Amino acid sequence: MPTVRFLSSGASAGYCEVASVEVEDGTTVFAAARAAGIALVSPCGGKGRCGRCVVEIREGAPEPTDVERQVLGPARLAQGRRMACRALALRDLVVVLPAASRAEFTEVLADGESIGFDLTPAVVARVVGVDAPALDDPRDDLARLVDALGYGRIEAEPVALRELPRVLRANGFCARAILRDGRLLRVEPPSASGRLLGAAFDVGTTTVAGALLDLENGRQLAVASRTNPQHALGDDVVSRMDYASGGEAALGDMQSRIVGCVGDMLAELARTAGVAPGAVHEIVVAGNNVMTHLFLGLPPEAMATVPFAPVTNSAVSVPAAELGLAAAPTARVTTVPSASAYVGGDIIAGLTALGFSGFDDEVLFIDIGTNGEVVAGSGARAMCAATAAGPAFEGARISCGMRAVPGAIAHARLADGNLDLEVLGGGPPGGVCGTGLVDLAAAMLETGVLDDTGRIVEGGASPLASRVREGSEGIEFVVASGDCGEVALTQRDIRELQLAKGAIAAGAGVLLGRIGVAPADVRRVLLAGAFGSTIRPESAVAIGLLPDGIDPARVCAVGNTAAAGARAFLASRRAREEATRLARWLEVVELSADLDFQDAFADAMMFRS
Amino acid sequence: MPTVRFLSSGASAGYCEVASVEVEDGTTVFAAARAAGIALVSPCGGKGRCGRCVVEIREGAPEPTDVERQVLGPARLAQGRRMACRALALRDLVVVLPAASRAEFTEVLADGESIGFDLTPAVVARVVGVDAPALDDPRDDLARLVDALGYGRIEAEPVALRELPRVLRANGFCARAILRDGRLLRVEPPSASGRLLGAAFDVGTTTVAGALLDLENGRQLAVASRTNPQHALGDDVVSRMDYASGGEAALGDMQSRIVGCVGDMLAELARTAGVAPGAVHEIVVAGNNVMTHLFLGLPPEAMATVPFAPVTNSAVSVPAAELGLAAAPTARVTTVPSASAYVGGDIIAGLTALGFSGFDDEVLFIDIGTNGEVVAGSGARAMCAATAAGPAFEGARISCGMRAVPGAIAHARLADGNLDLEVLGGGPPGGVCGTGLVDLAAAMLETGVLDDTGRIVEGGASPLASRVREGSEGIEFVVASGDCGEVALTQRDIRELQLAKGAIAAGAGVLLGRIGVAPADVRRVLLAGAFGSTIRPESAVAIGLLPDGIDPARVCAVGNTAAAGARAFLASRRAREEATRLARWLEVVELSADLDFQDAFADAMMFRS
Repeated sequence: MPTVRFLSSGASAGYCEVASVEVEDGTTVFAAARAAGIALVSPCGGKGRCGRCVVEIREGAPEPTDVERQVLGPARLAQGRRMACRALALRDLVVVLPAASRAEFTEVLADGESIGFDLTPAVVARVVGVDAPALDDPRDDLARLVDALGYGRIEAEPVALRELPRVLRANGFCARAILRDGRLLRVEPPSASGRLLGAAFDVGTTTVAGALLDLENGRQLAVASRTNPQHALGDDVVSRMDYASGGEAALGDMQSRIVGCVGDMLAELARTAGVAPGAVHEIVVAGNNVMTHLFLGLPPEAMATVPFAPVTNSAVSVPAAELGLAAAPTARVTTVPSASAYVGGDIIAGLTALGFSGFDDEVLFIDIGTNGEVVAGSGARAMCAATAAGPAFEGARISCGMRAVPGAIAHARLADGNLDLEVLGGGPPGGVCGTGLVDLAAAMLETGVLDDTGRIVEGGASPLASRVREGSEGIEFVVASGDCGEVALTQRDIRELQLAKGAIAAGAGVLLGRIGVAPADVRRVLLAGAFGSTIRPESAVAIGLLPDGIDPARVCAVGNTAAAGARAFLASRRAREEATRLARWLEVVELSADLDFQDAFADAMMFRS
Repeated sequence: MPTVRFLSSGASAGYCEVASVEVEDGTTVFAAARAAGIALVSPCGGKGRCGRCVVEIREGAPEPTDVERQVLGPARLAQGRRMACRALALRDLVVVLPAASRAEFTEVLADGESIGFDLTPAVVARVVGVDAPALDDPRDDLARLVDALGYGRIEAEPVALRELPRVLRANGFCARAILRDGRLLRVEPPSASGRLLGAAFDVGTTTVAGALLDLENGRQLAVASRTNPQHALGDDVVSRMDYASGGEAALGDMQSRIVGCVGDMLAELARTAGVAPGAVHEIVVAGNNVMTHLFLGLPPEAMATVPFAPVTNSAVSVPAAELGLAAAPTARVTTVPSASAYVGGDIIAGLTALGFSGFDDEVLFIDIGTNGEVVAGSGARAMCAATAAGPAFEGARISCGMRAVPGAIAHARLADGNLDLEVLGGGPPGGVCGTGLVDLAAAMLETGVLDDTGRIVEGGASPLASRVREGSEGIEFVVASGDCGEVALTQRDIRELQLAKGAIAAGAGVLLGRIGVAPADVRRVLLAGAFGSTIRPESAVAIGLLPDGIDPARVCAVGNTAAAGARAFLASRRAREEATRLARWLEVVELSADLDFQDAFADAMMFRS
């Protein structure tokens, strides 16, 4: 079995062995690399078309294939260049990995669309060999390393400087350098098995989602999810701001709850992946701007009243240690930038993950979580707004409401004049989550048990009329009943739904009006968030959650784009640049001061058949 | 008495009051500013010649003087521009301070030469007014501040972001921003009396000197000096490196001793000046490269053996808090860059303070501390080297040696065939310090009690012959005797002096040879350090501390240039840039491997009449 040795090249000096692997005779270099834990770029999927996986084979290079002759040409072939997906290991090989064939990070969204991002994290590891010191070469150790890396000049953390001389001298003047944005963070032996990891968090008002990524190959190693522990202090951003405005201790309480939660999740992610938390070198937090402020301990109160001024919309970077998070000593936490007080880093992350800048057609992007944010437009121009939708779609403030967990009625359909309920987990229903609420309202409307104004109709001709009754809090609609208790929607529940859906539909309508696009001309409606990803488009259109005229066939779910965008922000420089650009480029419309919106909202609260 | 109000202008927005002062009728605006604690630029010394102190008088502007008409012209006069040193306060004035008339930092060296540096510290305070938020102005607080400062974009410390919204809203949207290299560190009320201070340390192998500077006007507020507490672990850099190489704990011991010393001195400086240590925002440390390594906790051992590779010669910046130094929370410590393992930041600082780049003529710069470093050349080209002079000139390794403290014989002269001794403090002599040793050797040579080879001559015709006797450790020369004890130089003491002075003279000779300048053509010999500043040039030439042929009249003392350079590095961007340039530009000659040096050293150990 041939042995394939992979070397990494310093810019000026020698080569260092990165990995070595024994493979079956005739294995491609590409497959050998993968077996050795090295991910090579291959946009074409190893089909010999893109020519991106070129390596230099210094020993044992096979005869070039026809494809390689055509793609690479005689000069590069003569230098030993081969395509890793074509070159076969027929004898022992020594392969030099050029930086350009390093792995690429591809973000796959829930609906299968994939946006390619280069794997260019802020923190990188480079294995280099440097020239040994000599009397006629008076460079200091740091200068040797910088020259070998091909950098003009870098600053170094003192801890890295402490490690540098001993690592170099114990390893034949080879080392693995860990750098952030050209700053030397750590110096390790070239054979160090320490991984270079990053964590991305989507800090929602209700739910916090985290993912652990290997920054050297872009792979996701673990995920975790928890309820935001600030929830006990208020279920929406307004009540959180109100609490946090109550003095230093209250703001500190808010901050330590969410930072503590992220710390616990970091530990859980590391445990799940079987790695040390010290291997985490970069942490990204995407959240709405109130969550971002509270995470950083910034006073949010100026966002609570007109004119809603955040302390900052920009990305903020802070040492993880300063927040008390257990990670690598030089790890930093960076927040995704926001567009305004109420169009936050979660929305910017989502648009980044979707590749919004590349959209030629007009789209409507709606992220429904505890708030409902709307973006309308294309890569040429877009407007955004936040709507005070409230948490009804997360099951809050609904008498029988619950989150989308086992026992929740997640969907409902009319079948032979009766309701066909889909309960998460399959057991008896314990309540209704957001998608179930929308389906139920759509069914009630269709059968006439709910009128256009949102009034529950008693004694009509509807096949569901028998479910309407006088309850302890007035008229109500019985969704399910049986031994395990009852689930019913009250008139007040329907009013909550009307306020929520009306706010979103009106906001979307106003933005479309501002950019001059009729609802019928919207090419795609992208629904993000857990709710948006599982809602039935027909029901959403039926209850008027979307502006009149939207074609249900153009509505698609795109999953948790905030989390996807946080991962992209973590893994790719292009994503960070894109997010920074989008946050400044998006036109923010403040609906609370907009008279058009007031009109549209009053109108959109109604149900139209 | 008129009141003069001084305003600082934001780049885009309003004006903020910086200070207000009542003055006698007819006081100049320049003097009023000084009374209010504001230092204005005035290279001509307030004589109405340079036109650098121009301010804008918005209310109460007096009739322009003839000088102002001539210097400023009608257009600027019409805008209210006046020269602060000419304009008189005859009624209440409102004066706007443009940034260009801010104070300048001038470093005055011991011999009265002054090198002007712009007062451009890394950390600055700016008072600005920002536009209040409004619904039609959706900028966040940070963007408002950045725009008012006239910066394109800045990063901000989380602590500054926490302060920003409340300070702005409590002070009519005015604030005092503290920034380092364009990074926002803190936000204070515009009236904050907190001062912006910096501390500069010259960390010598034997002595640590510190100075506290006001970074807003360049004034020195306090100085302090201590013995380097590493001294107990070795009296020269070689023994310190040897000790520090004994493992993590030994290196940690070395580091904590010097960091602890600097911390104690910071507290002392603050106490002396009557300020809080938290007002210190920037700390500069200049030292030889071994001291710099030990201060930063960097392993020094590769500098102890050929090829003498430092971990780094570059400036290193580290948070003061990381070292455990009590200062402002965002304070940083920055080291002055070195040229090599043995031509360190102290020498680079010294050359910076001297304005070495501006030297048209060939000079010889010698800094004699525990080591002896030599620089030869001009601003066009210069070479440097370290000589292993040892600590003899600091009184160490001399049987009756002591530092230049009360009781030390600091000078000696022949008078009527006998010795006239100058004892520091005026009391009875307790020993001999470096300058006394050189004077004594010169006197012994002149009278023939010491021969050319350095042998103490018994029974000669010298008027001092009666002082030569057989002591417990062989032949010795009695310097002083009496009730309070005896001071004598042994043959071995003379050998130590020969080794030390020979190393320096040979090193200087080799460098002059390399750059092709004869000793007689050296325009100035600049002696730095406590010893170099108090030595008698005639004696230095007489014992051959300087290469043969140097004109004693061209020898001048320049004081502690390392400390002066550290202050300049702290106060001036130009000094920092100059030091960085010099550290890379100087040509380092490694004498230990130089055969010319071995020859020259053997020769220079001799005494020549």
